[in-house]
Amino acid sequence: MRVLGLHGSPRKYGSSFKGLMLALKAAEKYGASTEWISLYDLDIKPCLGCVSEDIKACKYPCIIKDDMIKVYEAVRKADAVIFATPVYWYSPSGVMKNVIDRLTVFENMIHIEGRSWLDGKVAGFIATGNDSGAMFAIAQLMTIMNSMGMIIPPWSMAYTNEMSEPLENRAFVTDALNVGRTVVMMIRALRGEKVDKWYDPELYNWYEKELKEWLVTLVKEEESKAEKPWKSSTS
Amino acid sequence: MRVLGLHGSPRKYGSSFKGLMLALKAAEKYGASTEWISLYDLDIKPCLGCVSEDIKACKYPCIIKDDMIKVYEAVRKADAVIFATPVYWYSPSGVMKNVIDRLTVFENMIHIEGRSWLDGKVAGFIATGNDSGAMFAIAQLMTIMNSMGMIIPPWSMAYTNEMSEPLENRAFVTDALNVGRTVVMMIRALRGEKVDKWYDPELYNWYEKELKEWLVTLVKEEESKAEKPWKSSTS
Amino acid sequence: MRVLGLHGSPRKYGSSFKGLMLALKAAEKYGASTEWISLYDLDIKPCLGCVSEDIKACKYPCIIKDDMIKVYEAVRKADAVIFATPVYWYSPSGVMKNVIDRLTVFENMIHIEGRSWLDGKVAGFIATGNDSGAMFAIAQLMTIMNSMGMIIPPWSMAYTNEMSEPLENRAFVTDALNVGRTVVMMIRALRGEKVDKWYDPELYNWYEKELKEWLVTLVKEEESKAEKPWKSSTS
Amino acid sequence: MRVLGLHGSPRKYGSSFKGLMLALKAAEKYGASTEWISLYDLDIKPCLGCVSEDIKACKYPCIIKDDMIKVYEAVRKADAVIFATPVYWYSPSGVMKNVIDRLTVFENMIHIEGRSWLDGKVAGFIATGNDSGAMFAIAQLMTIMNSMGMIIPPWSMAYTNEMSEPLENRAFVTDALNVGRTVVMMIRALRGEKVDKWYDPELYNWYEKELKEWLVTLVKEEESKAEKPWKSSTS
Repeated sequence: MRVLGLHGSPRKYGSSFKGLMLALKAAEKYGASTEWISLYDLDIKPCLGCVSEDIKACKYPCIIKDDMIKVYEAVRKADAVIFATPVYWYSPSGVMKNVIDRLTVFENMIHIEGRSWLDGKVAGFIATGNDSGAMFAIAQLMTIMNSMGMIIPPWSMAYTNEMSEPLENRAFVTDALNVGRTVVMMIRALRGEKVDKWYDPELYNWYEKELKEWLVTLVKEEESKAEKPWKSSTS
Repeated sequence: MRVLGLHGSPRKYGSSFKGLMLALKAAEKYGASTEWISLYDLDIKPCLGCVSEDIKACKYPCIIKDDMIKVYEAVRKADAVIFATPVYWYSPSGVMKNVIDRLTVFENMIHIEGRSWLDGKVAGFIATGNDSGAMFAIAQLMTIMNSMGMIIPPWSMAYTNEMSEPLENRAFVTDALNVGRTVVMMIRALRGEKVDKWYDPELYNWYEKELKEWLVTLVKEEESKAEKPWKSSTS
Repeated sequence: MRVLGLHGSPRKYGSSFKGLMLALKAAEKYGASTEWISLYDLDIKPCLGCVSEDIKACKYPCIIKDDMIKVYEAVRKADAVIFATPVYWYSPSGVMKNVIDRLTVFENMIHIEGRSWLDGKVAGFIATGNDSGAMFAIAQLMTIMNSMGMIIPPWSMAYTNEMSEPLENRAFVTDALNVGRTVVMMIRALRGEKVDKWYDPELYNWYEKELKEWLVTLVKEEESKAEKPWKSSTS
Repeated sequence: MRVLGLHGSPRKYGSSFKGLMLALKAAEKYGASTEWISLYDLDIKPCLGCVSEDIKACKYPCIIKDDMIKVYEAVRKADAVIFATPVYWYSPSGVMKNVIDRLTVFENMIHIEGRSWLDGKVAGFIATGNDSGAMFAIAQLMTIMNSMGMIIPPWSMAYTNEMSEPLENRAFVTDALNVGRTVVMMIRALRGEKVDKWYDPELYNWYEKELKEWLVTLVKEEESKAEKPWKSSTS
């Protein structure tokens, strides 16, 4: 069972990063192997909308040759994908939006091979912001990924819409852990395993005992390594 | 396997009715028993928002005593629910919205019993309109039902956003049939059966050969029986 | 200048009520006369979608005879309407949705008289909830009312998406006051007055000095008068 | 009166281009000077979200140095901005989203100078697609631009959600013309002029007589000049 995280924030230590790490760690706990990609580290050009010209012109491989190939290969192998994005103006970040637009070549294989390459994969969502708009952003991601053929398991979302520290926000932490859990439970269900319940509030205790310290340390390390281009503007 | 249709239109022969019938017939084809409820025939009062007062005040049975009991009982028994609504101003009809708000007593059982009564049930969506807004309406329904604990199987939506006859709209017909198919495939998957693919474009041929005539006749009968209060206003 | 508030919550002392009172008091400060209607006190039946049958069948007066006549008369006279709703599942309450659907008879006068009866009126929005979804709800209200012909002045929204007391939430209070201010500024602009700026953060000081005590007292009074049907369920 | 069009499609002869040209020509008819920018011709990098680090770090000039400067300068001078985008997965294109995210430096001047640089400017929207999602995309654009301080005049949107030729779609053509008209009427209103009505269905006749032939020719010329990278993929 492979779970892929796509991270759409320039801040690889911020709220969406924290949420994604929580989800991936929970996914591992339930038996998945995980990896994640920082989309801001890649050069991913915007979609050219070939499908508007000719329904069959949009297919894998995409005519644009850039770092999106890394995303394509990782998504192709994954059983589940967790989309983690900051909420920029009530929506996913522009970088995440470009990645989604470029995934059309997978979805559009339905017109080439009779089947979307995302058909039956499982989706989870993390959207974090300091203000309103998280649910609006998730609504976009969820309808899109379902329209591309993905399964949305129960409780497949975690979000913030206020300024407080996410790692101290019990609801967010529990929800983010359950995003990782629910996508793995769905993969298991598709493999014939029975699922008793889809949300486990007890995961929070595991976080407090075994995960929190590690995660706080990781975040600090990542933050210390990060370039912070905005510093110049405030000095 | 039980599939329930909730129909939120005053016109029991209109586009959303047609879409729902298509979905239910396909669900039957794949082994489910089905029933549907016309929400406009029921007296369903608006939610009183008790949960805003006290998180534990909202629980089954709802303090409002009205026809919603019929919806509660049907949803409780169902493995999957298909929400079929006209698009009124880019959203579900007010009647459908009231039903959704009242379903909070099921979802909120998570705070009473540790588990939503909708947890692990499967959802499908049909939204029909003469103009834009179908996807906006589906985005509302999908995020809500997922937040209540429901599974959204792949391709779980069918919609129209133009004036043409839905039963002549190949994409809509095929999608609506697949809404019925995908919810049943998901129920089967949860019972251990392997699903090869989640969307079958060939269902359209079945419709043309075996379903269309029956459905056209049914719609005519329903329309001839219907009260049409707007007639008086146009005479 | 007349500003009308439509209040779509069963709790006439809750967050959306507070927001609406703030907006209306600010509207008065800038020269408007105000009134508000508690939609939960009225019997407003759901829209019958006549327009789907015949584009000309939907016109004023609506064929449904109920308390909506009070809303119609008040909206007709108003220069601006402020829609104040709790966020129920990322959307306006079902009661508010029914009112909006029923306003179609005003909008649809464009097909009867060549002009929507809402054309050029000004709209403001207040959406309050304990969780995410406020912006999703506002997006629905804003696109709908603009499509019906209303003007959306700058910063015409105030919202909450967390549990804290709204009257202690500086951003919400300031935004809600500015909803009242911006709709009046727009009415004035339409009458030839020049508007220097559309948002005044200083209104918060006025609130603290002259409004807060009065409003806290009003809310207490309203709450003490209110029936609380949910009490029975928690005792 | 200056009206700026921002065009967010790779196809400078497609549906959103047509809609934008209609709007700009109508704006000129009512007295505005116009210009437009093809966003796909610019190198515009994604937002770095500085504001999440420090509310005062995000201000004009943006720390990212790229072609966005052309958009900043044009928006600064404009009285109204028309956002024209294809609908990519129920949302604006990723390129348009990046531009919007980058406009945060204008909006955030409210925290630097007490006033958004978009405060009181007027917005119009064109969103075109072959399928559902136009209203969902417009809802995003409208809430965002209103939150940045822009005025949304009545009927400020035009859209398609089907495959037919937009220039033969009477509703779309009339709506697109009225987007140009309504933004100019709002600028005029803000300058003290009285507006009698905000939507003029008669503009369609003007289009048929004086605009259509010119526009059809322009589109053909633009299309013949365009690079079509997707061609290689279909040969």
